[in-house]
Amino acid sequence: MSPRHIALVLSYLGTAYHGWQIQKNGITVSETVGDVLSRITDEKIKLTGCGRTDAGVHALRYVADFRTTSGISTEKLPAALNSLLPRDISVLAAFEIPGSFHSTRSCVRKEYIYKIHLGKTRSPFLRDLALHYPYPFNFAEVKKACANFVGTHDFSAMRTLGTPVKSTVRTMYSCDAEISGDMAYIYMCANGFLYNMARAITGTLLEVARNKTSADGIPEILLSRDRARAGATAPAHGLYLARLWYNTDNEMFNRLCNYEFIEGSM
Amino acid sequence: MSPRHIALVLSYLGTAYHGWQIQKNGITVSETVGDVLSRITDEKIKLTGCGRTDAGVHALRYVADFRTTSGISTEKLPAALNSLLPRDISVLAAFEIPGSFHSTRSCVRKEYIYKIHLGKTRSPFLRDLALHYPYPFNFAEVKKACANFVGTHDFSAMRTLGTPVKSTVRTMYSCDAEISGDMAYIYMCANGFLYNMARAITGTLLEVARNKTSADGIPEILLSRDRARAGATAPAHGLYLARLWYNTDNEMFNRLCNYEFIEGSM
Repeated sequence: MSPRHIALVLSYLGTAYHGWQIQKNGITVSETVGDVLSRITDEKIKLTGCGRTDAGVHALRYVADFRTTSGISTEKLPAALNSLLPRDISVLAAFEIPGSFHSTRSCVRKEYIYKIHLGKTRSPFLRDLALHYPYPFNFAEVKKACANFVGTHDFSAMRTLGTPVKSTVRTMYSCDAEISGDMAYIYMCANGFLYNMARAITGTLLEVARNKTSADGIPEILLSRDRARAGATAPAHGLYLARLWYNTDNEMFNRLCNYEFIEGSM
Repeated sequence: MSPRHIALVLSYLGTAYHGWQIQKNGITVSETVGDVLSRITDEKIKLTGCGRTDAGVHALRYVADFRTTSGISTEKLPAALNSLLPRDISVLAAFEIPGSFHSTRSCVRKEYIYKIHLGKTRSPFLRDLALHYPYPFNFAEVKKACANFVGTHDFSAMRTLGTPVKSTVRTMYSCDAEISGDMAYIYMCANGFLYNMARAITGTLLEVARNKTSADGIPEILLSRDRARAGATAPAHGLYLARLWYNTDNEMFNRLCNYEFIEGSM
């Protein structure tokens, strides 16, 4: 067989994993999926993911690509993988894609959702799935603050130093907050996210929620490029990589990556 | 202290428990909460619950009452209990109520919700929380069938033989189905439920969903009083005791028990 290039669309509960990327001190999603793929194809498979996710962060959609010379049918791959994968990882679909595709570099836009449970008492159904925040929450001010993250900014104040990056400028296409019942949701959609950026923005919005920072103060915090001026990094377990945008010729693939929140995918 | 009668409103994830009621072969919710109460009050506490729930069944709301002569403040009880209870059980509130109150006998109406995930692929976020049913689902026919359960019927065909009951007649106030995204929900509200009744009705609706039984066939199945004519008992992990109706003088208690589904309670 000539080598094929395959992209997987996954969904996973991050609780049990040390994020996506292989590392020495814990099991990762990449390693878990890679091992099963290697077993199925009888090849050593190296997966490229659409980005790092931190330990405990979830993915409603995640894209990873790999090359294989094995004869396994792309169509049957999801069922074959799911039968061997642990129940907290699910492969939604597999697509044969051009060799030039790269899960990270071909991704033009990502959306993260941060879930906050505002109920007075912790919910047995949300442990590891949402931040429990049983305090007054100034929603109107949070919504105003969100709007101040939209646009092209240097997000140095909203990241943790990690692997060096060429630029700390990113474009936030939309940033908004929603309340439904006793849940609050923060939506962040950008052309890319720096290390811990989604969690630092959420942490800053939590300071706005408790009136420690005002919405009007956000532009100045961004301009300061000073991490210490922003809020603490919000806990990982409330964060979901939710939607991904690719401009490939495969419309089904593009659409599956960015279709809007549906309940079963939660 | 003169003895006080206290009602607790709880919420729990049933996955790790052998239902509510104490039994020899596994840990139950009743036992878990009772042990913590005994520890806090330094008395041997016997809890009366609002009904049995099967192993794996969840409760968005559950009511249990007990008597105590200890001096612990009713108001502080939820926080004290939650600090000692495992994270899959949560005490939402505690109320001092008249001695005549009985969690089962004073309950005039209950609502169960059954959750079905219709997505093609299992969801990592719904394991133990919804039945995965990745098959064609005739929703219009299911909705029609639901209506045929409403009214006062002998529900013998929809129960598993268990503890003898005086009557197998129950009044179903409402029974309906809803679809939202890739989830289907069955709502069942009655003055009482026989053993496994909610799961047998759901199992029968699943036969309707796959066109094995028609909506028009439901009245005849009910009249037959023959369990074999109905569908199989649906798995426990999709079922939630959702709302409870009491007519006590305590409006806050009554309302907390039956307020409608809100997301954090999920």
